Amino acid sequence: MFRYKLILEYDGTPFCGWQRQADRMSVQQALEEAIFRLSGERVTTQAAGRTDAGVHALGQVVHFDLEKLWDPFRISEALNYHLRPHPVAVILCETVGKAFEARFSALARHYQYRILNRRAPAIIERHHVWHVPMPLDADIMQVAAQRILGRHDFSTFRSSECQANSPIRTLDHFAVRREADHILVTASARSFLHHQVRSMVGSLKLVGEGKWTPDDFRAALDAANRSRCGAMAPASGLFFVQVDYPAG
Amino acid sequence: MFRYKLILEYDGTPFCGWQRQADRMSVQQALEEAIFRLSGERVTTQAAGRTDAGVHALGQVVHFDLEKLWDPFRISEALNYHLRPHPVAVILCETVGKAFEARFSALARHYQYRILNRRAPAIIERHHVWHVPMPLDADIMQVAAQRILGRHDFSTFRSSECQANSPIRTLDHFAVRREADHILVTASARSFLHHQVRSMVGSLKLVGEGKWTPDDFRAALDAANRSRCGAMAPASGLFFVQVDYPAG
Repeated sequence: MFRYKLILEYDGTPFCGWQRQADRMSVQQALEEAIFRLSGERVTTQAAGRTDAGVHALGQVVHFDLEKLWDPFRISEALNYHLRPHPVAVILCETVGKAFEARFSALARHYQYRILNRRAPAIIERHHVWHVPMPLDADIMQVAAQRILGRHDFSTFRSSECQANSPIRTLDHFAVRREADHILVTASARSFLHHQVRSMVGSLKLVGEGKWTPDDFRAALDAANRSRCGAMAPASGLFFVQVDYPAG
Repeated sequence: MFRYKLILEYDGTPFCGWQRQADRMSVQQALEEAIFRLSGERVTTQAAGRTDAGVHALGQVVHFDLEKLWDPFRISEALNYHLRPHPVAVILCETVGKAFEARFSALARHYQYRILNRRAPAIIERHHVWHVPMPLDADIMQVAAQRILGRHDFSTFRSSECQANSPIRTLDHFAVRREADHILVTASARSFLHHQVRSMVGSLKLVGEGKWTPDDFRAALDAANRSRCGAMAPASGLFFVQVDYPAG
C-alpha cells in the first residue's frame, strides 16, 4: 500500500460538507468517486478538518492509500479531470510515509473568515462572504480578539453537537483587519472545536456593532456556556486555508 | 425630470451583457425592471460601458431620469431589493445635473483582467478568472504592455463588430503584475474599442508563454490588422472597475 497526501481547494456551496452522507453530495464522496475512476480502488479518505455544509477550503489536506504506486503529478491531473464538474480541485499531490495522517499529524490549522461590510449586498462574492450591512469597527474587534488568545475552555464557542472529548483548546492566533469594504478574520490553532470559528466570529460582530465591549467578549468566553455565544456567523464566509505538519 | 447616477456591481455570468436583447436577460433589462417596480416609470438607462456577455463590473456607471424626485439612498435600497435574485447591486446612487451622461461625460475607464496561473483549475473563482495552466512570465508581459502605451491605431485589438468611428485610442495605463498564483492586468483609457482589453490580454498571454517577444507584441499593434491579434481572452476574467468624471 502507498499513501498519498492531497491539498484540496473546494467551494463548499453545493456540498453537505466534507463528510459523506447517505442522501447528499459531500466533498468526500466526490473525491472518493474520482479516485475510484482513476484507480479502480475503493478507498476511504481522511481529511484534516471535517468542514461543514457551505464552508470552503483553499488548503484542505487529505490522505488515502492505494495498492498501486502512481506518479503524484499524474494523480493530481487525473483527479482534476474526474472531479469535474464538482467545484473541487487538487492543488498538490505527494506520496507520504505511513506515519502521516492528515487529521492526527496536523500541528496547526489556519482559517480565514470574510465579512463584506457595506450597505449593498454581496454580488461577485455572494457565496464567499458574510454580508453585514451595518458598519463594523474592525479595530475594536481586533482588541476583543486579542482578549481570548491562549489556552481556555471554549465551551461558549462550541456547537452542542461537538464530539471532542474536551472543550479546552489553545488559540494561537486570532486577528481582525479591515481591507476597504472587507473585514478579514484569521484564526490559527492546533485544533478547533465544532463551529468554534463561526461562533467566535458571530460574537465578534456584536463587538464590531458596539453591542458588546471587548470585556463582554472575554466574559462570554469565561462563562464557558453556549448560551452566552452570539448568533453564529454563516458558513459562506469561512475558508479552511492551510494545515501545517512536521517537516519531512 | 430628475437625473440619477448609479454605481453598479454585477456578476456577468448569467447575462447576455449590459445591453438589452429580445430573448436573453441583460443587466440593463434587470435594472430597468427594478426601476419600474420602484417608481412605476419605464425608463431607458445609459451605461458608461456596454459590457459583453460574461464580463463583470465592480463600478459600472449608469444614468436615468425619473419624473419624481426620490431620496438617492432610498433608491439604492429599493433597487437592491427589487433586483434580487439577479446578481446586480447598486453600490451608490446620487442625483446629478442634466449635463451628466454616464457614457459621454466619462474622462477615464478602468478595467482589471484576472488570470489564475496554476496547474489546478479555478474553483472558488471559477467564473471570475481566466485559468491558464502553463506558467506565464508576468515580468516580460509587463515589459510588453509598456510598449503599446499612448495614442495608436488599435485595429489589431478591435472586434470586427466594433462600431466606433475611429480605431485610434489613447492607452494611458496598461500594467501586469503577479500576486501569488494570479496575474493581474490593469488598463485605463478615456475609452476602449470593442473587445480591446480582452484582445490585448489574449496577445499578452502569448508573450507570457514565450511564444511572442515584446517586439512581436508591438509589431502586432503596428500592423493595425485584426488577423495579427492572439486568441482573445475569455470574458470571465474581465472586470469593469471604475469610471472617472469631471469633479462636481
